[in-house]
Amino acid sequence: MDALKKENNVPPSHDLRYNEAMQTTSLANRQWIYVKRPTERVTDEHYELRDAPMSGDIADNEVLFQAKYISVDPYMRIQQHESNTWEEPHPMGIVQRAGSVGIVVASHSDKWKVGDWASGYTGWQLFSKCHAADLQKLDPESAPVTTALGVLGMPGRTAWFGLMESGRPKPGEVVLVSGAAGAVGSLVVQFAKRAGCRVYGIAGGSEKCDFLVDRLGLDGAIDYKALSTTAELSSEIQRQTQGVDIYFDNVGGWITDAVIPQIKRRARIIICGAISQYHGGLDRPDQGPRFLHHLLYQRATIQGILARDYTARMDEMVAIVGPWVKNKEIVFEETIIDGFEKLPDALSSLFDGRHVGKVLVRV
Amino acid sequence: MDALKKENNVPPSHDLRYNEAMQTTSLANRQWIYVKRPTERVTDEHYELRDAPMSGDIADNEVLFQAKYISVDPYMRIQQHESNTWEEPHPMGIVQRAGSVGIVVASHSDKWKVGDWASGYTGWQLFSKCHAADLQKLDPESAPVTTALGVLGMPGRTAWFGLMESGRPKPGEVVLVSGAAGAVGSLVVQFAKRAGCRVYGIAGGSEKCDFLVDRLGLDGAIDYKALSTTAELSSEIQRQTQGVDIYFDNVGGWITDAVIPQIKRRARIIICGAISQYHGGLDRPDQGPRFLHHLLYQRATIQGILARDYTARMDEMVAIVGPWVKNKEIVFEETIIDGFEKLPDALSSLFDGRHVGKVLVRV
Repeated sequence: MDALKKENNVPPSHDLRYNEAMQTTSLANRQWIYVKRPTERVTDEHYELRDAPMSGDIADNEVLFQAKYISVDPYMRIQQHESNTWEEPHPMGIVQRAGSVGIVVASHSDKWKVGDWASGYTGWQLFSKCHAADLQKLDPESAPVTTALGVLGMPGRTAWFGLMESGRPKPGEVVLVSGAAGAVGSLVVQFAKRAGCRVYGIAGGSEKCDFLVDRLGLDGAIDYKALSTTAELSSEIQRQTQGVDIYFDNVGGWITDAVIPQIKRRARIIICGAISQYHGGLDRPDQGPRFLHHLLYQRATIQGILARDYTARMDEMVAIVGPWVKNKEIVFEETIIDGFEKLPDALSSLFDGRHVGKVLVRV
Repeated sequence: MDALKKENNVPPSHDLRYNEAMQTTSLANRQWIYVKRPTERVTDEHYELRDAPMSGDIADNEVLFQAKYISVDPYMRIQQHESNTWEEPHPMGIVQRAGSVGIVVASHSDKWKVGDWASGYTGWQLFSKCHAADLQKLDPESAPVTTALGVLGMPGRTAWFGLMESGRPKPGEVVLVSGAAGAVGSLVVQFAKRAGCRVYGIAGGSEKCDFLVDRLGLDGAIDYKALSTTAELSSEIQRQTQGVDIYFDNVGGWITDAVIPQIKRRARIIICGAISQYHGGLDRPDQGPRFLHHLLYQRATIQGILARDYTARMDEMVAIVGPWVKNKEIVFEETIIDGFEKLPDALSSLFDGRHVGKVLVRV
């Protein structure tokens, strides 16, 4: 955990010098362009760094936005598969799409003033011209701005609605989470504890498992890297949990193969991600045991969820989770990597499983 | 279809000769005892036919029941697996459990008179002493008595609640059913048509496919035996359906592998059975493609169902489906095999897929 760099409470910038002057200034914009489809691990060879100077000129109801933190998320790798997933594959030759947090540096909108913090979906670039309605205002007093990309953003929404709407946790139930130390998993386990559940996490390595038990207060953690077969993992899950009511899956593959025989009656399995398969196993599916008969025995449910389905309900989540964040009642680890040029490496690093919590790039 | 023997409207028996005299009569009861666990196909080597003469003596509130039709159902093979499924494996050394339809031949209960038709869960034997509350009365005037083992019994309940509660069909949606010519499947497709859906069936052979389209009025049928790979089947499903909203699965295995990539957003997949895997693939799971990522893309749901969960709600189904049966608005094919000694063969024949509709043994 010492290796993790964490920065919260970045003070808001109120530098006004760009305001009207920006309209005629040339901005040293830089962009990471997605140029090549990965078939296995995504690396910097799939991106091209471009200088893209742009004028600061904006139209009515537009603002000029400067990114300060840019997100890397596992879903980006899914969108690079050759076949459709929830939408067309990410087009090539354009800026990598991504969420970001930054400041308004020029505004032709009554809604925005220079220096306002905002989050947007502006991609891997330093500057963007945005419609005033396309940014969300952030209040740095109520939560660190980076939480808009984590606990109070897409990962938090995924964790909250996935667990609450699809999982429907009841006190006393057993919740098991794969990828439990990750951006989404580390929130799911805490939400499940607050719902009165017995909560177990699967993660890779003793450091993460210690984090889950010692920092997040889980009832147990399973280090899958210490086990070499599906049968061993399945036995360890059974030994610790005595059966699973809710399985929140971020990982897929052999870890999920090991969990499914351990589900209890009326179990709910939430498919949030399948990160173990993002290196090509989606286009050319891995083979695994056919296990749907367990669903019949246990009258269980598997449900796939996607964060975007809950975008319009963000306020419901923030109304509950926001105060927990403000009161420091919830742990939201961040790994912050410095440097715009590090974005492809940062994305690639998600698939090592070497980080805890949300990974961000400070630019 | 000509090969199928069908018998409905069996007249009720009102033979009173056994009434009190039976109390001291020795009955030539015969039983099929489950004696050996199959590891692959179940055959008559796993059963032993025993003569088990019994007295006709019954206590207060008991009735003596004589089976006339005995059921064979795919779930029996699941219960023969060595590991627990929804309950302990079927014990060895006892009568094979099964549903039956027959008549009351002696009664010490005000609820029953000799000659009444009843259904029960009396197993593979000719005579049973039952508590008066353990049989369900049948009215041969309102529906053929054999329907208590089919459309108005367990298979009908499975089809109705599985489709309506887990499938939640909406008019205009596309429903695809595997094992569509079987006892459950042939009802699901008809219920789905009545719900206003576009309905397609998967079945083996052109005869069954013609039955689905010509007799049951489906929008299309897919003969999986005419296709040799998962990819071919998947393409044919896409070509005919243009995507599936509800997949009602009785079969599992490679047929289900072919369907899942063709699901549409918010698809509901109902796991009712996995008959392709009942020959040992449950104890030693087959390998298939890992496809849970499709659930994420489509925010789809897989739900396992079991008929027994809806036993207490049987009246809801009968209130709706009963009149359809009475008015001959629904097709319920039966294959009736003659002879008590044929029971193991009849069970085994379910896994050939050679019958249409519900398979019964007349004893």
